[in-house]
Amino acid sequence: MSVTAAQGFVASGVVAGIKSTGAKDVSVVVNEGPSKVAAGVFTTNRIEAAPVTWSREVVSDGRADAVILNSGGANACTGPEGFADTHRTAEHVAHALSQTGREVGAGDVAVCSTGLIGLRLPMDTLLAGADAAITGLSHDGGDAAAEAIMTTDSKPKTAVAGRDGWTVGGMAKGAGMLAPGMATMLCVVTTDAGIDAATAKAALASAVARTLNRVDSDGCMSTNDTVLLMASGASGQTPDPSQFEAALTEVLASLSRQLVADAEGASHDIAVTVVNATTEHAAEEVARAITRSNLFKAAIFGNDPNWGRVISAAGTVPEEVAPFDPTLIDVSINGVQVCRAAGVGDDRDLVDLTGREVTVVVDLHAGDATATVWTNDLTHDYVHENSAYSS
Amino acid sequence: MSVTAAQGFVASGVVAGIKSTGAKDVSVVVNEGPSKVAAGVFTTNRIEAAPVTWSREVVSDGRADAVILNSGGANACTGPEGFADTHRTAEHVAHALSQTGREVGAGDVAVCSTGLIGLRLPMDTLLAGADAAITGLSHDGGDAAAEAIMTTDSKPKTAVAGRDGWTVGGMAKGAGMLAPGMATMLCVVTTDAGIDAATAKAALASAVARTLNRVDSDGCMSTNDTVLLMASGASGQTPDPSQFEAALTEVLASLSRQLVADAEGASHDIAVTVVNATTEHAAEEVARAITRSNLFKAAIFGNDPNWGRVISAAGTVPEEVAPFDPTLIDVSINGVQVCRAAGVGDDRDLVDLTGREVTVVVDLHAGDATATVWTNDLTHDYVHENSAYSS
Repeated sequence: MSVTAAQGFVASGVVAGIKSTGAKDVSVVVNEGPSKVAAGVFTTNRIEAAPVTWSREVVSDGRADAVILNSGGANACTGPEGFADTHRTAEHVAHALSQTGREVGAGDVAVCSTGLIGLRLPMDTLLAGADAAITGLSHDGGDAAAEAIMTTDSKPKTAVAGRDGWTVGGMAKGAGMLAPGMATMLCVVTTDAGIDAATAKAALASAVARTLNRVDSDGCMSTNDTVLLMASGASGQTPDPSQFEAALTEVLASLSRQLVADAEGASHDIAVTVVNATTEHAAEEVARAITRSNLFKAAIFGNDPNWGRVISAAGTVPEEVAPFDPTLIDVSINGVQVCRAAGVGDDRDLVDLTGREVTVVVDLHAGDATATVWTNDLTHDYVHENSAYSS
Repeated sequence: MSVTAAQGFVASGVVAGIKSTGAKDVSVVVNEGPSKVAAGVFTTNRIEAAPVTWSREVVSDGRADAVILNSGGANACTGPEGFADTHRTAEHVAHALSQTGREVGAGDVAVCSTGLIGLRLPMDTLLAGADAAITGLSHDGGDAAAEAIMTTDSKPKTAVAGRDGWTVGGMAKGAGMLAPGMATMLCVVTTDAGIDAATAKAALASAVARTLNRVDSDGCMSTNDTVLLMASGASGQTPDPSQFEAALTEVLASLSRQLVADAEGASHDIAVTVVNATTEHAAEEVARAITRSNLFKAAIFGNDPNWGRVISAAGTVPEEVAPFDPTLIDVSINGVQVCRAAGVGDDRDLVDLTGREVTVVVDLHAGDATATVWTNDLTHDYVHENSAYSS
């Protein structure tokens, strides 16, 4: 049910014709209230696409009434003309929604785009698609919306967390953060819980930091990455902020896991967990150093439990970021402690890497904090998919 | 001529039998003076191999009389026993050299190792090889020494800069920094110029920063990386420090270029030059962000002049590190300005990427500082070589 699992939302996904494949390519999600609370998290890339600039401004006052999303074109690196296209799209959607009896201002319509960089969007096609999507809005349109934001994704990603009287539901696209340049991550989450803008903003920042931001393969967000949260209050329930954050985190964790599982060209999903660090930040930084090592990722592709590459990557993290004694590090891969005290541990031939999921646990023996970062292996198919086609 | 191009040095390279292939695997280089000045630059990885710990201490007083280098085993992650092996090697070499009439203390013998991580060295084989190498020391042994430090290198790397009455010569090994975990970079440079320890240390740090440290593919040094400079003063000439640094930089730049050209599995050598940055550091950081992007590297493998991936990578550098206006960036690839003001520039079909060398110039329009960082493309062969074989 995706973004229409929560009460107070309508959505749709249609074939506008932006994609040459004839697949669905325009989604609209509308918050019918009574509340119109919204929050967003956006790419930290300084090269940001026009829709990111626009949508960041839209949610800056804690409100958004609707979002339109298109695949088939990122509207990034398109200059002032690209920004004008985004602005025009929001105005068009606001006007079309108003004609259906929903009074919406353009400044409350977020816009998300994904696809090729450096190309203008085909505006006539997009706006005609927006009209069709608005005509098709329904209380069970969440799945169609999730389908229409796909690019190289092999399947739609949706998740729902039901609570006693209120619900959080979401959709995401992205064929793995492995390829952020072509696989922009877009995510829309809706809830019928009654929360205020400050709660929405804080909960979203915290939940994203522990879920989507811990899917990390090459360390940089794309030009278009966007996570939007919209809250209607339609359930009449007002959960405790911590309860809400837990449900939101559950939905985003599920969507994150689905992104990893659908990463382009990957043959393994790898969870790197760093334990007994001095702080959660230290644990996360060490885990990230490992998940960004091409040598480690290539070894996992080769079903090679290469603990030397794990600790070599850990050793690149400066001591001021993650204090630990390098001579104490232990590494377990899929349950076998192949490295003990930075030296040879149990027999590496005991490690079975034939399954898709791989668990690497690094014990720093420095404190009691833990963090997990997900990545994928570096494969021939990754190279092929990112070299054979422009994007 | 490599390390024996300068007067006052003898060297050799022999087959000890550490490598199963029967190739040369032990080198010795000895400074016969009159001066025994030395300086070193070592890996910043906190997981450092035993020989790095040892050699860092050896050169800390600005003196080294000899260095023994072995391929076939890195002596990394081998614990206190591994350190004892290194110590024993230095003592053995010092004793054997003293028997040839060269009075050398073990504390003045540097040790370098390269090869697999996590395995103890075969000490009997290594020490017998050391004896053979010391017996074979000669004034024209530089090429044999350069050959014996190779691992997956396809050819030895040597360079010489001759000046009026004095010389700098060097050797290096490393099949590209692309694969630092298996392709440790080792480099020994000798000179007969009369320089003091402070000049040697300062010149080496400065020259390495602009040459070897600007060959960057996955951003981390290995556990064993070592650059040693030894100065005999045998020419009787005392160049100006800036003249010496220029000659040293020339030798290290040549060796760096040879490392890039021999990178495992690479099909392109890529020079990323950032111009008009506010500082050289800012230029270097932006260039590094681009050379570390798997998406960019895979695109070059596919002969795709993908400027979107270039500026997306540039955009990940924080503004406090590299101030620039992201909307002003220009990108040229092999002379064609494919991106102008962060948007579409000249026809990308004009870019010819069929040659091995690729030049990417990124203009930040923010100042007048420049830096170049070299990398290689990300290829099927890279994945194959780093997944199919353990290391």
